[in-house]
Amino acid sequence: MKISHIEHVGIAVTSLEEAIPFYENLLGLKCYAIEEVEDQKVKTAFFKVGETKIELLEGTAPESAITKFIEKNGGRGGIQHVAFCVEDGVSGALNEVQEKGGRVIDAAPRRGAEGLNIGFLHPKTTAGALVELCEHPQE
Amino acid sequence: MKISHIEHVGIAVTSLEEAIPFYENLLGLKCYAIEEVEDQKVKTAFFKVGETKIELLEGTAPESAITKFIEKNGGRGGIQHVAFCVEDGVSGALNEVQEKGGRVIDAAPRRGAEGLNIGFLHPKTTAGALVELCEHPQE
Repeated sequence: MKISHIEHVGIAVTSLEEAIPFYENLLGLKCYAIEEVEDQKVKTAFFKVGETKIELLEGTAPESAITKFIEKNGGRGGIQHVAFCVEDGVSGALNEVQEKGGRVIDAAPRRGAEGLNIGFLHPKTTAGALVELCEHPQE
Repeated sequence: MKISHIEHVGIAVTSLEEAIPFYENLLGLKCYAIEEVEDQKVKTAFFKVGETKIELLEGTAPESAITKFIEKNGGRGGIQHVAFCVEDGVSGALNEVQEKGGRVIDAAPRRGAEGLNIGFLHPKTTAGALVELCEHPQE
């Protein structure tokens, strides 16, 4: 696979309302979009930083991966995942990982926030970090 | 403060030796430097991804922040911090955060990996994520 850049860094927060002012008032970044992804039971807030984005994530249901992450983290937010933009397609990249003996969470791409095609790798394969591969559908 | 881009994403790993092959063989990134930062009791490995870097961190002592992070994380690695490049200086940025009522770990910049001037904000201020501010000394 060919990775061009980090598309975003996903940060779990207990409350978007409490977290957004830190990024806006202290860091001087600008929240340009808030979006609910029902499928993943999250509400997201996006900030552009150079070629990368910060994606804040608040869980909207107990079964949300974000709610579970915060529970495991002692009730605190934290950095939940890093998403790499794959130039030559997420589908092929997920196949490539599996052919090389790696494990994936998503065997095929699915739709994520901002309309991206996304797929997660399994943390057993990535030495612990939760890694997402993504692409813009028009690419 | 003026943030230009994400300088790096810091990922705690239990072993650089086990983690590097994932980033090289599965993601196709290239480790361009391995460096020990004695002051912080870590060994680091760097990968360039667009304008950002992935910094893998292995603790070299029980009191290392990385060793403690992994302990709290059930013995697993994970994404430990995100570092923003500050165009107008870390020293002023740390002051600005405190003037606005935020808490910092480092009241003044110190020297980090790759010779950067760095300073960490307190997670109580950042809604949970560990945030580093940094600058290249020549900037």
